[in-house]
Amino acid sequence: MIETVQDLQDMARGAVLLGTGGGGDPYVGELFVSEQIKRGKLPKVVSPESLDDDAFVLSIAGIGAPTVIVEQLVSEKTLLRLLARAEAFYGRRVDALISAEIGGANSVFPLALSAISGVPVVDADGIGRAVPQLEMTTFSIYGIKATPCLLMDDVGNVVVVDAVNDRTAEDLCRSVVTAMGSMAFSAIYPMSGRQVRECAVLGSLTLSQGIGRAIRVGRDRADGDPFASLLAYLRQQDGRVARILFDGKVTDVLHETRDGWHFGLVTLQDLRDDKDQFTIEIRNEFIVARHNGEPATMVPDLISVLDRESAEPLTGEMLTYGQRVKVLGFAADPMLRRPESLEVLGPRLFGIDSDFIPIEDLAAKIEAADMVSAH
Amino acid sequence: MIETVQDLQDMARGAVLLGTGGGGDPYVGELFVSEQIKRGKLPKVVSPESLDDDAFVLSIAGIGAPTVIVEQLVSEKTLLRLLARAEAFYGRRVDALISAEIGGANSVFPLALSAISGVPVVDADGIGRAVPQLEMTTFSIYGIKATPCLLMDDVGNVVVVDAVNDRTAEDLCRSVVTAMGSMAFSAIYPMSGRQVRECAVLGSLTLSQGIGRAIRVGRDRADGDPFASLLAYLRQQDGRVARILFDGKVTDVLHETRDGWHFGLVTLQDLRDDKDQFTIEIRNEFIVARHNGEPATMVPDLISVLDRESAEPLTGEMLTYGQRVKVLGFAADPMLRRPESLEVLGPRLFGIDSDFIPIEDLAAKIEAADMVSAH
Repeated sequence: MIETVQDLQDMARGAVLLGTGGGGDPYVGELFVSEQIKRGKLPKVVSPESLDDDAFVLSIAGIGAPTVIVEQLVSEKTLLRLLARAEAFYGRRVDALISAEIGGANSVFPLALSAISGVPVVDADGIGRAVPQLEMTTFSIYGIKATPCLLMDDVGNVVVVDAVNDRTAEDLCRSVVTAMGSMAFSAIYPMSGRQVRECAVLGSLTLSQGIGRAIRVGRDRADGDPFASLLAYLRQQDGRVARILFDGKVTDVLHETRDGWHFGLVTLQDLRDDKDQFTIEIRNEFIVARHNGEPATMVPDLISVLDRESAEPLTGEMLTYGQRVKVLGFAADPMLRRPESLEVLGPRLFGIDSDFIPIEDLAAKIEAADMVSAH
Repeated sequence: MIETVQDLQDMARGAVLLGTGGGGDPYVGELFVSEQIKRGKLPKVVSPESLDDDAFVLSIAGIGAPTVIVEQLVSEKTLLRLLARAEAFYGRRVDALISAEIGGANSVFPLALSAISGVPVVDADGIGRAVPQLEMTTFSIYGIKATPCLLMDDVGNVVVVDAVNDRTAEDLCRSVVTAMGSMAFSAIYPMSGRQVRECAVLGSLTLSQGIGRAIRVGRDRADGDPFASLLAYLRQQDGRVARILFDGKVTDVLHETRDGWHFGLVTLQDLRDDKDQFTIEIRNEFIVARHNGEPATMVPDLISVLDRESAEPLTGEMLTYGQRVKVLGFAADPMLRRPESLEVLGPRLFGIDSDFIPIEDLAAKIEAADMVSAH
């Protein structure tokens, strides 16, 4: 699945889109894996179906401030040491790795460890996008405990957290990571092969790579419209809705880091400078997009901002005044829209005073309003 | 050594004095152990000499904000669960418990666990007073590592910290404890019987109990002067200097909690209301006492504030306007005054711009100045 640097670049590009503004830029991890590929050390990806029921599968994830994750060099020594400590701690050989979240930097860390250790990565993840807290995973929602987990920093401090529930695990891990300098690697969510099939979002590496490839192929075509190619690909996924929510330029970006969170507000305007206004609220990820005040897409559905010409997906930190962009809305994986999932990662968990409304319903509402105002 | 409630009360009273304003009031823990004693479950104290060289000895300590430690009820279940988890983690039966610091609440937690588990407590501790940080112990100074250690809260969250050094262990543990609600019990500083004899402050339970007894006996005598009795007892300890630094009333108390620390400044005046001014700076513990601006005692020597009549030792939090008190200065255990100790717990570590000057030298200076001013 990942045999060339281009395969990896496609996947990383898709991971930024699925990162929905957050999750950390996979760029540094991507460079690390590219180096391994050039040396002939390929990360190995296996399908969820290929796992034995009692295979031992473990997530390897960076935890910390996205800004710090981006700057962090991936240390071969730290990753291998974490794997060795994890195997000693759990008393089992790790049969496969799994990404906790496919969106952002955590898409590539398991691949990095796979390339240097030979342990394969399962084509699946815990959320199908990026999320700000470690308990916000389908693993946790469907009964896999995040802990006992290991946290390790680059100087070799190791902390094992065994929490009574995953919400508390998040608080404990976050505190430890802050003391470790705002970035640590974790070995987390120990699970069986059967649990992967039951609780993970399946095929997420394939999706991520497909997204990146659709954008690249669209650009390279004679009639090159990467957006047409991207939307066509996205719409093949389980009938999930994908639409361009807005086409315009960034007129304002507010960033604030508070209590370990990245808050922000992006304001966009139409290129014709008419009265149309579009905003995107950030809480680590893009959580709600509003068109003239009316919600157009909300978490857990995905909001992504892409360069208007190249369709390169952008993280929240990359956005600056004057940038010309298109905003994409993309229905979340169906697992994330179930009632039990919305209890853990619905809009109210992000401080939004609304129940979840799917992008397709919001689109229908907006179209109806447009028809009324056209009269 | 502790056979009656009075024995325990003597020890706890002495522990407040050795707590030098901080360390948390042992009162709640004392109540718990009193209950055990009344039921015939006595804590067992053994001498350091009685330990086998390879006996496995472990500290049981509360870590957290002193104000929270004071309010925390001691849970029999939590203490026993911590012991069981620690034995499973280290893979050894615990042969004896040791107090990490004899000053304050951490004097009684090992006794509490001893009473309910039958595991004896060694007559020794890691500092001979109270200190604000977990790496400030003679254990650490003389080569015993604080970690791997276990932290456990009352709801059953468990965190294992394995740090590259004890300074980092302090940061990691402090962060975890904050996330646990500002109070946790720890199983920390695993050591051998031989290490106890080489690295601990010896006889600290005896000292603590002796202090409390001297105060009580002094009060009860016909010519009752608890201070005379107390000073006589203290001066028997290795020739350590003990003196009353000031006799007056509290005219001002500032308390501030910042970054998890308790900062404060106590101002006292002479009872005759003359121009004499006396201040005590608090950083969790009393760290420097100044008479008209000139240092009279500084950390690691001990500063204690006692009720002017009953000689009851008072914690920093107990001090209020108008209280009539005497301030005691007491030379630290000789181990704490060695150069290697002062590097870890000398005045500069507390933000004081001075090398350590022993109480006896400061006293000589003050007396010389008094003789000059009397001319």
